[in-house]
Amino acid sequence: MHAIGIDIGGTKIAGAVVSESGEIVAEDRVATQAGDSDAIVESVIRMIEGLSIGHPVAAAGVAAPGFIDAEQSTVYYAPNVNWRNEPLRERLTSRISLDITVDNDANAAGWAEYRFGAGRSYNDMTMLTIGTGVGGAIVSQGRLFRGGFGAGAELGHLRLVPDGLPCGCGARGCIEQYGSGRALLRLANEIADVGGIGLALADARRDRGVLDGSVVGELIAAGDPGATHALEQLGHSLGQACASLSAVLDPQIFVFGGGVAIAGDLLLDPVREAYRQHLPARGYHPEPKFVIAEFVNNAGVVGAADLARIHARKSD
Amino acid sequence: MHAIGIDIGGTKIAGAVVSESGEIVAEDRVATQAGDSDAIVESVIRMIEGLSIGHPVAAAGVAAPGFIDAEQSTVYYAPNVNWRNEPLRERLTSRISLDITVDNDANAAGWAEYRFGAGRSYNDMTMLTIGTGVGGAIVSQGRLFRGGFGAGAELGHLRLVPDGLPCGCGARGCIEQYGSGRALLRLANEIADVGGIGLALADARRDRGVLDGSVVGELIAAGDPGATHALEQLGHSLGQACASLSAVLDPQIFVFGGGVAIAGDLLLDPVREAYRQHLPARGYHPEPKFVIAEFVNNAGVVGAADLARIHARKSD
Repeated sequence: MHAIGIDIGGTKIAGAVVSESGEIVAEDRVATQAGDSDAIVESVIRMIEGLSIGHPVAAAGVAAPGFIDAEQSTVYYAPNVNWRNEPLRERLTSRISLDITVDNDANAAGWAEYRFGAGRSYNDMTMLTIGTGVGGAIVSQGRLFRGGFGAGAELGHLRLVPDGLPCGCGARGCIEQYGSGRALLRLANEIADVGGIGLALADARRDRGVLDGSVVGELIAAGDPGATHALEQLGHSLGQACASLSAVLDPQIFVFGGGVAIAGDLLLDPVREAYRQHLPARGYHPEPKFVIAEFVNNAGVVGAADLARIHARKSD
Repeated sequence: MHAIGIDIGGTKIAGAVVSESGEIVAEDRVATQAGDSDAIVESVIRMIEGLSIGHPVAAAGVAAPGFIDAEQSTVYYAPNVNWRNEPLRERLTSRISLDITVDNDANAAGWAEYRFGAGRSYNDMTMLTIGTGVGGAIVSQGRLFRGGFGAGAELGHLRLVPDGLPCGCGARGCIEQYGSGRALLRLANEIADVGGIGLALADARRDRGVLDGSVVGELIAAGDPGATHALEQLGHSLGQACASLSAVLDPQIFVFGGGVAIAGDLLLDPVREAYRQHLPARGYHPEPKFVIAEFVNNAGVVGAADLARIHARKSD
């Protein structure tokens, strides 16, 4: 039976009716009224009601950014949406007669890759989503790894550098500060500042006023040595993090998603290189695969729908 | 029904008949003929046969140091025993008509703590065994987390310091180099070298020829400032590692086992202090407990027996 998936993002709320094989049957989207918790809940309810019309569905899953409890019910903390200990499932089930679950957005996206995307032939997958920040998801023995309080798989906050760059989470040296889209722009600006291979980056910055993801992405695609070097540094940091993660999680496959992953092997090659260099017990530790995610958009809604369907089945 | 657990250590092979509630009904031990793989296999077979007499058992589990495949069958790599891709289960089942499983020794010890010890009231536990090295075990949603290839939960090889101290695993900066019993001796020797609070350590070293675990342990128990400072540094490193591990694994409880954990709160207090200081999103991330393991000895045999019993039940 179909299920509904909703993905609450910083700028838009996306929703879809998703089939059991992960196909999108109908979809909808609306702007997020960021910071207005009540308005967001109303948008989600209207979207679920609208998508339900003409589509019998088994359940609805909502993906949200932040810490969600292990019972898939309460948002502990979602800074963008201004939620603290928000009983989201309860608020939704009081208005909608469907089995509702709430999951972290990176976990939902990772679950979609595991079920229908790059991880579908594996039981143990680790996903890193390289967007503005670094998100994470872990699948172990075919199950989503949520952690004891539901706050696990926050892979962007593995510490890479002691006393390193300050992170929005309050700690220092998190991989998010060295391996995210924002880190790529910082590295590109540093290279632009010093000239040499950074000349094209400096020119682009002067012409357009600022280096953003699309400018740096274009220069990477064009083979510019400065932009490529920034991406390599990013990949080396991520590869070092993967070496530590292998000692802990030992996945069969690492999947890289998010906007920066569009760079494909230009990102993965330095990741693989640094991984091999830093892996504990290399030569004895079986080697995981490193691949790019297959979903471009919609991983969040597809994963949220599938997780809701699984939950509804268990509750039957 | 009872099960047999065998723990192959560097100096001795311990075995026991273990009840369903984790009690030891009979036990045996013999010296390990280190490096002689065939002799070790013969010892294990004789021990299982001997323990079986008069004790009907459902299965036998063998715990070994090293990488064991996720099928609980083959030892990929066990440096002390000189095993490489050793089909240990096959070798044992060809001689013994019992359901046999093989597990990593730290995983077996962690499983015993989860089932019958300090972790028994929790579903999600992370254990760090602070002996000569640093071992690890992860229980998630009541299941032992082995990783995709069986080489997960090698928590001693999480990287703490980039380009840090070289580790026996070939990588650098592993937590094992900053948080193990061997690291405690290195720290104690450094403090002895500089005088000041290190005077008692320096005296002890001169009197006994060398600082070993028992000397440093006695000075810690006596409240010597130099030895206590070494333990605090050790605890701070371990607490920093736990902060990173919380972002990934988010356990409800951290259990500390191994010889150094005898120090109790003298170890745990600096662990907790560093953890709080370095935890990402502290204030929003629910706080795990930090406790000392309850098993002093026998965790390996008890855990191995219980894992074998569970495996035999599934195979029925």
